[in-house]
Amino acid sequence: MAHEGITSIQNPQIKRLHQLLDRKGREAQGRFLVEGAHLVEEALKSAEVLTILYDNERDMDAACRRALENHPQGVQVIAASSAVLAKLSETKSPQGIVAEVKKSQADWSEWMKEKTAAQKDMLLLLLDEIQDPGNLGTILRTAEAAGVDGVVLGKGSVDLYNGKVMRSTMGSLFRLPVFTRSLSEVADEWKALGGHLLVSTLHEKSVSYDQVGYEQKTAIVIGNEGRGVSATMIERADHLVHIPIYGQAESLNAAVAAGVFVYEAQRKRKDRLS
Amino acid sequence: MAHEGITSIQNPQIKRLHQLLDRKGREAQGRFLVEGAHLVEEALKSAEVLTILYDNERDMDAACRRALENHPQGVQVIAASSAVLAKLSETKSPQGIVAEVKKSQADWSEWMKEKTAAQKDMLLLLLDEIQDPGNLGTILRTAEAAGVDGVVLGKGSVDLYNGKVMRSTMGSLFRLPVFTRSLSEVADEWKALGGHLLVSTLHEKSVSYDQVGYEQKTAIVIGNEGRGVSATMIERADHLVHIPIYGQAESLNAAVAAGVFVYEAQRKRKDRLS
Repeated sequence: MAHEGITSIQNPQIKRLHQLLDRKGREAQGRFLVEGAHLVEEALKSAEVLTILYDNERDMDAACRRALENHPQGVQVIAASSAVLAKLSETKSPQGIVAEVKKSQADWSEWMKEKTAAQKDMLLLLLDEIQDPGNLGTILRTAEAAGVDGVVLGKGSVDLYNGKVMRSTMGSLFRLPVFTRSLSEVADEWKALGGHLLVSTLHEKSVSYDQVGYEQKTAIVIGNEGRGVSATMIERADHLVHIPIYGQAESLNAAVAAGVFVYEAQRKRKDRLS
Repeated sequence: MAHEGITSIQNPQIKRLHQLLDRKGREAQGRFLVEGAHLVEEALKSAEVLTILYDNERDMDAACRRALENHPQGVQVIAASSAVLAKLSETKSPQGIVAEVKKSQADWSEWMKEKTAAQKDMLLLLLDEIQDPGNLGTILRTAEAAGVDGVVLGKGSVDLYNGKVMRSTMGSLFRLPVFTRSLSEVADEWKALGGHLLVSTLHEKSVSYDQVGYEQKTAIVIGNEGRGVSATMIERADHLVHIPIYGQAESLNAAVAAGVFVYEAQRKRKDRLS
């Protein structure tokens, strides 16, 4: 019986999609791949999905079937062989379903203008050269869970659309406004709008994270896993803050630190209301 | 020039050490491997190191040299080829130095007896089938940073001595008392000693993590990444607690959740003292 669908990894469309596994290809095409039924479903809910490829050589589970049945018109659905799906997968056990998604076109200046008009106590997270894709994904998942309004990635960060980032976000990327910008420009803009800038650092002048207020318009800066935050962000800080280290550990994981900060911010905000 | 050191991956000692990359081998031999100068240094400070192997085909950095110079008598130091070091490495870029370390022999009952006599407000973390090695390592690193007194791994967890766990701990494992025990037995023992048991769950009866006290002797239970905590721990809980989710994310990463809990505990304890 002939295979109905794409079986060759030399197929031009597969070759083009394969380029999306690299940052360069994603930047050239303005698109990225997500793998697995859960992420494909989340992308269908909140992003512009262009193509879905599924493995028609294996049994489809319920989540896969749901993703394939509920796509809007205009999404191209392609059956392909297991070998083709494996070619487009970065994981040891390919999930049998992959979607090609358009990068978000959200405009930072417009978003800031609208948000600032609508909300007095915005909470932002600014990420200064986070390098580990698992950390970045977990930070985005945490930020969304904690109700952070938006996240800004500084230049020099790991690519937001890296597959491992995607998988660690658990879909949060599709629901959370995330921008890639120069952090020093964002900090200047933020302060001009009356926003507070808290910079996480073990600097000698930094105070404990629970000794500052988070009730106003606040942005929290989290630094690189090894080097911490850059001097240019420290200069711009309204407060330098740190999470105390009681043991001999040198530091906290960046995603854990982000979690402790944003939940302290929400706890203080909630206490004010009650 | 002849190579001075082990060059064959068929060498019996190398074959024996290679078995330590698997849980089965680690359990049979009661030993494990750590890779990289930083972890080797930490192991030398706080654990029983039996053997150090280093790559004598490449330049040694300062940290490697320090680890090799500061080992106590009785540690066997072996020069070997890059191929041998690669054979004992689980990472893409072998670090050029590996140590064989004896598993800790700390006795739970003795530790508990001594600790309980010395300290009224112990803080424990109980981990109920944490599966992801990166999560487990990050939880241990966080626990040590936050000054948690000890951690208990329930049966069915990922192996504590897994290489990825090691690397994610950043050395905390060597400084933090960690035990592998039946969690329900530990919970019963803890409660018999007057300890409080807080169980993290999104159960309908659970209260927000910041609405309970942590000032007394407290153990916090963190559940499996997918299934959460087991019914047997929920039954034993003094309080069911959760971290509120403000966005649409389904849950927090287990290590982030552990961080938010233990830092809230320390914040409340510090407030009491001040």
